[in-house]
Order: sequence, then C-alpha cells, then structure tokens
Amino acid sequence: MSLDKTAFLFDLDGTLVDSVYQHVLAWKESLDAEGVPISVWRIHRRIGMSGGLFLNMLLRETGIAMSEETLLRLRHNHAAAYGRLAAADAVRPLPGARELLDFLTANKFPWAIATSGRMETARHNLTALGVDPSKIPVVTRDQVRHAKPDPDLFIAAAARLGVDIRNALVIGDSVWDMLAAQRARALGVGLLSGGYGVAELQQAGAFRVYEDPADMLRNIDEIASRD
Amino acid sequence: MSLDKTAFLFDLDGTLVDSVYQHVLAWKESLDAEGVPISVWRIHRRIGMSGGLFLNMLLRETGIAMSEETLLRLRHNHAAAYGRLAAADAVRPLPGARELLDFLTANKFPWAIATSGRMETARHNLTALGVDPSKIPVVTRDQVRHAKPDPDLFIAAAARLGVDIRNALVIGDSVWDMLAAQRARALGVGLLSGGYGVAELQQAGAFRVYEDPADMLRNIDEIASRD
Repeated sequence: MSLDKTAFLFDLDGTLVDSVYQHVLAWKESLDAEGVPISVWRIHRRIGMSGGLFLNMLLRETGIAMSEETLLRLRHNHAAAYGRLAAADAVRPLPGARELLDFLTANKFPWAIATSGRMETARHNLTALGVDPSKIPVVTRDQVRHAKPDPDLFIAAAARLGVDIRNALVIGDSVWDMLAAQRARALGVGLLSGGYGVAELQQAGAFRVYEDPADMLRNIDEIASRD
Repeated sequence: MSLDKTAFLFDLDGTLVDSVYQHVLAWKESLDAEGVPISVWRIHRRIGMSGGLFLNMLLRETGIAMSEETLLRLRHNHAAAYGRLAAADAVRPLPGARELLDFLTANKFPWAIATSGRMETARHNLTALGVDPSKIPVVTRDQVRHAKPDPDLFIAAAARLGVDIRNALVIGDSVWDMLAAQRARALGVGLLSGGYGVAELQQAGAFRVYEDPADMLRNIDEIASRD
C-alpha cells in the first residue's frame, strides 16, 4: 500500500504562535474579576479546549453556579485581557513556524489551521504568522458545532482541503489536540511549545513529540509521506 | 530502625503560593525589553532555578552576549514586572497551603521554607501566606552561595531547623527542586501547581507527586513518619 501525500492540520495557539501563557493569565484576570478562585496551572491545562467545555469544567469543580450573563462577561473579559497582553508584538510566531509552513507550501503538502478560538482572536495571530485566511483554509470555533477535544474542527479542516483525514497529521501543543486527533482517526504530533510535558502528550496519543515547529521541520522525514 | 519525625522543607513560588505564571510573563517582558527572543515555555521550565544559572542557560542557547549591566537590568525589570503582575492580590496562597502549614505546626513537625528568590520578592508571598520570617526559618537566595538545582538552600534550611536532612522531605513544584532534593539526600515530593507534568517531576526524582498542598495534606500519611 502506498499512502497519499501527508496533509497537515495545525492548531494555532501554542503550536504556531507563542500565545498560551498570555491566554492563561487573561483567563485568570477574567475569573478573578468574577471572584472565581482557581489555581493558574489548572487554567493552563485547559487552554486549547472549547471555551464552553472549559467553563463547564470550572463550574463543576468550583461548585459555583453562574448565570448566562456571567459566562458571557467571563469570555468578553478574557478577550479584552488577552488583547492587552498580546499587544505591542508581545505575541510572536514560534521559532520555525513560518519556515515550516513555507516548506510545506513549497513542497505541495496540503495544510490548514483549526483552532478552538474564534476568528476575532485568531485574526491577530494569523497576521503575525503571515497567513491569509482567504488563501489558506482556517477553521475556527464559529464554524463547527463542537470544539476540541471533539474532532469536528480537524474533520472540517480535512474536508476543506479535500483530503482523507486518515492521511492527515494533527499538530498541536495540548492534550485536547491529541484526543481530537485520535477521535478523528488522524495521527497526533505533539509540540512542547504550549508548556505540556512529553509524557502528557504521549499519554494522550501523540505518536511523536517535538519541541516546537523548528524542531519538527528538522525531523519532518520521520512523519511525512511523500508522493 | 525507627526514623525521627519527618521534617518538611518547602519551596515557595508554585509550591505554597500561586505565582509561577506571573514570574514567567514578568521574565518575558524583561527579556523582550532587551530584545532577547525566547519562547515562553522555555522560560516556564526554568522558573525556580537560580536566576544566575537561568540567565547563563539563556545566553548559551540564544548565543547572545550580554554585559553585566544588561544582566542587572534584566533582573531589575523582572522584579518590577512581577511586582506589577502580583499586585492587587492577584498572587494568592495555593489551595490548602495555610492548612498544611497549620497542620504541621499543630502536630509539631519541623518545617522551613527555602526559595531561589530574594527576600525582596519573597516578602510579599510570605505575607500572603501569613508566615513570619522572624518565627519560621526562611532561607533565601541572599543567604547561600548557590541556589537550586544546587542543594545549598535545602541544606541550610535543615541546619536552621537542627534536623538531619536524610529525615527531610523537600516539597517543590519544579524539576530543580527535585534535583536539589536528591543532591541533598532528602526525599523529593512534587506538586503539579507550578505547571510541570507528573512524569517530568518523577523523572527528576520525586518519590510522590500531588496536585497541590491540599492534595498533599489529604495524603500526608503516605509520606510523613510520626514519632
């Protein structure tokens, strides 16, 4: 059996752009403002999952009941705080991110981006990366029913590329990306650039783990089938 | 053989106080101001180690040469940025931290604090914890030759308590605490509250890993010898 050329489905925050820690403190600021006490490492470990699931898990854990209004305010305040922390070029592409995407384009590997964030927040990161969403398929939370760890975002991204997801790699920095990859029957590739440890990513199903996009590009022959 | 009552030597940031992520972004801000590009997860993984070693490792990695003056400015700007991020009660004791220390005091277990930080930054955290350094031994970076992962801080803390370090537990959230524990011949107990994964702490020598001080207190009989 010969495989088709591998397709690459990328997460955005923590995978191509160095923005996870700013999201963490932005959520903390937003939760503090509503008097919801939660340790910062617990926020970190939920970044990248659907915002709705994230808040549901928090409510279950803290046992605090929240109105729809409060939940909306939490999201709004997170977006505002993130905008402030990410301003003035504090959020940058990860080392090798642009080179990796250029390499894939030059070598005609299909690739797309699939993020649990909304286009409103993603836009800033795409600009920093030099990715034009009118030319490259970018699937955001607005476009699917369920975000990660559900597989919908990656399934939609593969459909936009017109590829079989069983020939795709899902590249992400969080456990939620790796679970979604397995649920979509793609292979998961973990990057350490979001702050998870190697074993956490492997236990969630990563079949290979690299430090960041630069490290992945150096080792690309380990994971990509040429045609 | 019967062991003496266990002594507890605690790290401060990320172990008793929820302050690691603020330190991470404070270092990022300080490094950005000097034009030193470094991914945020790499900063995270070095928090808790001696500031001198931290900067040495950065210099080696980035290949950037820095004057003594720049290094001083980096530290000063980190302290200023941390002060800002930690203001207005944004840095709080971790869940169960006060209860754990109260339990140890009530049950006459000797305990002390040993931190790679300087008294200048530690003071704010000690106040938040309700620890009075005139009553409880607190060893800071100012008082020893080498900070973590060297064992000096914990050896000094055991000496201040008048206990044999081979009867002590070192409780920390970072790989540097666990390495220092082994080098001092203490047993390391890892907490996830600094954002490392379980396996990272175990591979650095943690003989047991808990989520945070509250989880450790619930399971204290697993690790502490009574007299």
